[in-house]
Amino acid sequence: MRPVSIGGVALTPVGEQWELSLRDLACEAALKALDSVEIDHIDALYIANMAAAPIQGQLHLGAMLADALGLRRIPAIRVEAAQASGGVAIHEAYLAVASGLYDSVIVVGVEKMSDALPEEVRSALAMAEDQEYTAYTGVTDIGLCALLHRLYMERYEAKPEEIASLAAVSHEHAVGCPHAQYPFKVSVERILSSPMEADPIHMLECSGIGDGAAALILTADAGNVEIAASTVAVDHFFLTERRDPLTLEAVRMASKRAYEMAGISPRDIDLVELHDLTTIMGILSLEDLGFVEKGFGARYVSEGNVRRDGELPVNTFGGLKARGNPVGATGVYQVAEVALQLLGEADRCQVEDAETGLAENLGGVASTCSITILRRR
Amino acid sequence: MRPVSIGGVALTPVGEQWELSLRDLACEAALKALDSVEIDHIDALYIANMAAAPIQGQLHLGAMLADALGLRRIPAIRVEAAQASGGVAIHEAYLAVASGLYDSVIVVGVEKMSDALPEEVRSALAMAEDQEYTAYTGVTDIGLCALLHRLYMERYEAKPEEIASLAAVSHEHAVGCPHAQYPFKVSVERILSSPMEADPIHMLECSGIGDGAAALILTADAGNVEIAASTVAVDHFFLTERRDPLTLEAVRMASKRAYEMAGISPRDIDLVELHDLTTIMGILSLEDLGFVEKGFGARYVSEGNVRRDGELPVNTFGGLKARGNPVGATGVYQVAEVALQLLGEADRCQVEDAETGLAENLGGVASTCSITILRRR
Repeated sequence: MRPVSIGGVALTPVGEQWELSLRDLACEAALKALDSVEIDHIDALYIANMAAAPIQGQLHLGAMLADALGLRRIPAIRVEAAQASGGVAIHEAYLAVASGLYDSVIVVGVEKMSDALPEEVRSALAMAEDQEYTAYTGVTDIGLCALLHRLYMERYEAKPEEIASLAAVSHEHAVGCPHAQYPFKVSVERILSSPMEADPIHMLECSGIGDGAAALILTADAGNVEIAASTVAVDHFFLTERRDPLTLEAVRMASKRAYEMAGISPRDIDLVELHDLTTIMGILSLEDLGFVEKGFGARYVSEGNVRRDGELPVNTFGGLKARGNPVGATGVYQVAEVALQLLGEADRCQVEDAETGLAENLGGVASTCSITILRRR
Repeated sequence: MRPVSIGGVALTPVGEQWELSLRDLACEAALKALDSVEIDHIDALYIANMAAAPIQGQLHLGAMLADALGLRRIPAIRVEAAQASGGVAIHEAYLAVASGLYDSVIVVGVEKMSDALPEEVRSALAMAEDQEYTAYTGVTDIGLCALLHRLYMERYEAKPEEIASLAAVSHEHAVGCPHAQYPFKVSVERILSSPMEADPIHMLECSGIGDGAAALILTADAGNVEIAASTVAVDHFFLTERRDPLTLEAVRMASKRAYEMAGISPRDIDLVELHDLTTIMGILSLEDLGFVEKGFGARYVSEGNVRRDGELPVNTFGGLKARGNPVGATGVYQVAEVALQLLGEADRCQVEDAETGLAENLGGVASTCSITILRRR
């Protein structure tokens, strides 16, 4: 396989974009990314989206967006893996360039949730779980996380404030980030006094959902940032079938393969964008990505290690919690953010001397995990 | 890129499968394909599906199906391009193996429409067109085809019976096909006396929709049938924006690239599986695939050239019209059928001495086209 580089990056602000359609959002990100590069031809378009069918009544986003962008006659392909659609679309785009068939491809992640009523959004998000069993019971993804959160506290004697500290750090990192939905500080006390979303998870421990689009151009031309690894793995769909619900096997497997592919170990990673759907998912991820031993993730975070100036900066633009969670586009945001860090273009969010960064994108409650490792050349 | 072969093939009968769920159908096809090969490990799963979100309320089919099949921890990826999902998923699986990252992957196409009411099915199928413009007007895909059908008759003085003859040949070919939904002969007279679906298209000129699943195993091991080419191209989403509505640019571009990739010309193709959503789409496709000059497709078909013993056997198991149209799975059926022909395993549908076959899969009214060319080694 030949090396693949990041050629260009674009992000739109995450939030409630009432005046922009799904197409507007996707085009804004894509055109900005295309403007940022000197490539005279795009060979293929990959589009990451979860919920346009239930929310906008729209499938076939590949053809639609290629047409809107004036990218005629190219292959245009939508990839869907629930909330991991972004990371998985990047994997497909990576393979497309690495294979040698395409030289330059654009990946656009887009999601527009504000068009729908809250119950329609809940119903669309529930489609990430098994409709005949899990979703049928009415449990939400936050409800499933709550089971893990409680078990984690009990088994590892983790304190609520230790787990909640991930949300506080994420908010701190989002301050000054122009594309963040919630770019302000929130204290651990404030988080733990917010209403229960699903006991023991507080509302301010959950990521919200937002509208947004992000775009990446991948190219066979040597660039300043290369994709050192791109992997995908799945786990049992039902939590009840997993050997240990507190071990995210998809994260373990995808990251293990990614480290092998990049020829590195977790110690070589300088910063991480986590899929912190809830605080507990971020904590478990830190452990299963190999950064800290199982059961010690919450303490590690609460001790300040994941702050911008800490041992392992995490969610450097705010993560799902504070940058926001544009669902099927989230994985593209994450990889774009890692690229901005390595390019030294992260402005007020800049981490010093970062050479290697990792993005973790999850679908469902880690039924799918996509890992992307970027490295500065 | 390294060569990619077809390792195994499986088809389930197309029809109204009231007693099988989407998962049941997909597993039946996948397990049958896995049983047919001596491969000890599958590296990745690709799943092609259009309408599970609106019909079954189910997204994230990759993780769901991998779990149901016991294929743990592998990458599992859903690809969607409306009715071209099958062909496009094969393209992605092809790239995955050709790149060198994965040695053996399985592609499963599945669609289950019988779970829904007719108006729900119509609404789901309309998601292949632009929801804000085309679908919004209430026009169906058959309605759009009717515009092309009338224009074709007027411009090229084609007779209704010439166009309808494609449906008659397809039905003739489906006789004896165990997985065909409508395996019986229908005369041109009967077709032209069936009710108008969208004037001038008669009901018996339209493909129906069916439930079904098909699976293919692609492998880097040398097999008896290789993928000589796999391409995807898109065209303007709106018919009104196309330079000439009777020229399917996506088909022209995808097939042109495919012939180049395979190092052949249309003359080297021994059989074709067409995406005959309606008779006119089959006729236009024959022209834009390069088999017959523009405007002469209907006459070419009516003269018997596309019959099993003709110059260019077409829809050798019945095509969308008579094998049936399991929507997002159709492209996988088509390629599986071409493989069966080249392997000499087509039983009563066998074409003599076929060495090279082409499958054409369309999304929308040819907004997306995927071409796969298989060749016997």
